[in-house]
Amino acid sequence: MIVLGIDPGTANTGYGVVRGDDARLGGASLVECGVIRTRPRDPLASRLHEIFEGVSELIARHQPDALCVEDVFYAKNVRTTVVLGHARGVVLLAGARANLTVHELPPAEIKKAVVGTGAATKEQVQFMVTRLLRLKSVPQPADAADGVAAALACLMAVRVPQFSMTPLSPPPTRVARA
Amino acid sequence: MIVLGIDPGTANTGYGVVRGDDARLGGASLVECGVIRTRPRDPLASRLHEIFEGVSELIARHQPDALCVEDVFYAKNVRTTVVLGHARGVVLLAGARANLTVHELPPAEIKKAVVGTGAATKEQVQFMVTRLLRLKSVPQPADAADGVAAALACLMAVRVPQFSMTPLSPPPTRVARA
Repeated sequence: MIVLGIDPGTANTGYGVVRGDDARLGGASLVECGVIRTRPRDPLASRLHEIFEGVSELIARHQPDALCVEDVFYAKNVRTTVVLGHARGVVLLAGARANLTVHELPPAEIKKAVVGTGAATKEQVQFMVTRLLRLKSVPQPADAADGVAAALACLMAVRVPQFSMTPLSPPPTRVARA
Repeated sequence: MIVLGIDPGTANTGYGVVRGDDARLGGASLVECGVIRTRPRDPLASRLHEIFEGVSELIARHQPDALCVEDVFYAKNVRTTVVLGHARGVVLLAGARANLTVHELPPAEIKKAVVGTGAATKEQVQFMVTRLLRLKSVPQPADAADGVAAALACLMAVRVPQFSMTPLSPPPTRVARA
């Protein structure tokens, strides 16, 4: 099973592609991670287009079985949160257009899945992502690590049914790709 | 010049297509208006897909010169505003993908353009939209009228350069369609 995890943002959208080779936990490996960057001076519509194209290209290239998108972080600045909603909207759209199962996970659920506690720090998440995927160093930049964490959390949650995941949809029912 | 005006929403996205036949104010006519409805029980990603497909279909059918999208109304419920941002994101994306000039107008600017005051009521906007476009009745439902008002405001603003429009981009420079 291949999962594309996304941490959306208008400036930096972090992503991670993680493959789970078998049902055993710890059998996950990192395929690719990175960041889709947009220029702050460009009009919002153009930036959303770049994010959409970037995510669509990742889906076309890796053919993931599921898309996992980090839920909105409610910033103190409402304007920031709303603009983030725009970016998140086009990411969800890219998944829907490719007929992927789309999961939305709040940041605390991702932390809980990866570290064991929803109150984990950014550094703890990075440490556990590096360890769980047996990487030589922390995925860089930080936004990429957040995308990887989302993918990993989704993979662990889908594969462990007793895991408590209120906002998660049921596991995909369609036939997995060969 | 043809303008597609959109009042985005996750449940009801109102739209209006308005054509300005000549440079004289009052020469505008309504081509089509309506609402793109989505089912509240459907997953957000599917609803965003329906909104995107609906707006893209309108663009393909009417070949507008510009897209005018009402800016976010900051509801008291932040969650509502953020979800609205998702819908708005896919509307802006549809415009960018079709290479349209995308204008974003705050609700107060639309009211000011159509009625003459940014504090106009919904009924006053509906009355003026009906009058300016010489319609026999108010566009129904209310969300459709809001889409028409956005298109009308954009058309009036673009055609009257001295009109005060801070958030508006310059008029399109590309050659108008025959």
